[in-house]
Amino acid sequence: MTIVTHINPETLHSSPAFTQVVRVSTTADLVYVGGQNGVDSAGVVVGPDLASQTRQALANLRTCLAAAGAGPEHVVKWTILIREGESLEEGFAAFGQEWGMRPDPPVITSAFVSGLAVPGALVEIEAVAAVPAVGAAD
Amino acid sequence: MTIVTHINPETLHSSPAFTQVVRVSTTADLVYVGGQNGVDSAGVVVGPDLASQTRQALANLRTCLAAAGAGPEHVVKWTILIREGESLEEGFAAFGQEWGMRPDPPVITSAFVSGLAVPGALVEIEAVAAVPAVGAAD
Amino acid sequence: MTIVTHINPETLHSSPAFTQVVRVSTTADLVYVGGQNGVDSAGVVVGPDLASQTRQALANLRTCLAAAGAGPEHVVKWTILIREGESLEEGFAAFGQEWGMRPDPPVITSAFVSGLAVPGALVEIEAVAAVPAVGAAD
Repeated sequence: MTIVTHINPETLHSSPAFTQVVRVSTTADLVYVGGQNGVDSAGVVVGPDLASQTRQALANLRTCLAAAGAGPEHVVKWTILIREGESLEEGFAAFGQEWGMRPDPPVITSAFVSGLAVPGALVEIEAVAAVPAVGAAD
Repeated sequence: MTIVTHINPETLHSSPAFTQVVRVSTTADLVYVGGQNGVDSAGVVVGPDLASQTRQALANLRTCLAAAGAGPEHVVKWTILIREGESLEEGFAAFGQEWGMRPDPPVITSAFVSGLAVPGALVEIEAVAAVPAVGAAD
Repeated sequence: MTIVTHINPETLHSSPAFTQVVRVSTTADLVYVGGQNGVDSAGVVVGPDLASQTRQALANLRTCLAAAGAGPEHVVKWTILIREGESLEEGFAAFGQEWGMRPDPPVITSAFVSGLAVPGALVEIEAVAAVPAVGAAD
């Protein structure tokens, strides 16, 4: 059973980096990962640069997903907040290095913001994932 | 069967533009539309102004909803990000022109941000919709 | 039956203020509370300061939850947007006063933004809650 349907309408711009819309079945549990920053296990921001922080934030996010019984393939939605003045290209490159490109990427909302709660943080990445409910057919 | 209940508590400020809280039943599929900008089918930002971009973003969003089997009436939540310095009134007016006013509007979170990922984009609109699961009673 | 599982992976930084990831069962209704500002029943922003507005926004949010059959314990995700230049410490302190600390806090995404839709608003707080579906075992 398909729990997520990824759709890119033909008349809209498309990109290998995101899906335009996803439909999640009632048979899926939802996993909400709180906004992850590029911090280590002590909560200290790693590296001073966006690339290092992006890789660390995604590694943390992967750990969160795994702990909830989900994998990268289950992410249906990203929210990516980058500190103003940082380079989107640098962030995207680091994202690709750490996360890779997948056949059915999530939908994305992103923005440059004035700042983040963790001092020194340049990026915050939130995810929603959809996972087959325990006991349900995949 | 009611899949979405729209609620405006009596003791809170209310507005025809939004609902304060919605409850979505377990019998609803969820549709996540990624942040839509005012871009054409080639990904090029339309018009230079917020009004044009807002109308185009909503047209794109409508296309996404339709492709996922949903309509404007199924949207339960908006997230609207507008570039700082733009006029909220201009955006709202364009929103009304393209989308209209509906009896049970979605809940809204909105903010002015420093910038958006697409160069030249002045607005990004994300939606979550709740649709009766296939095979379920509406 | 557990409708929400709160998880803090051992290898990640943890805090009493938030949970890193939550998994929501298919047996939960979802409650979306639109971004709440520190406004009174007439829609007028209260106090000039962040602390007053934060307490009022949370009081409004509590009212919204209750109207949808949910309580503070059902919130699974916060999105907290604070106007740039405001003090995170002041916001957090007011948050703790009004909301208290709970054993299983929600996941959080937060950011400083350039501004909010309501003139004079310094904070906007959005919540997603998960509530046992009517008729389902808790």
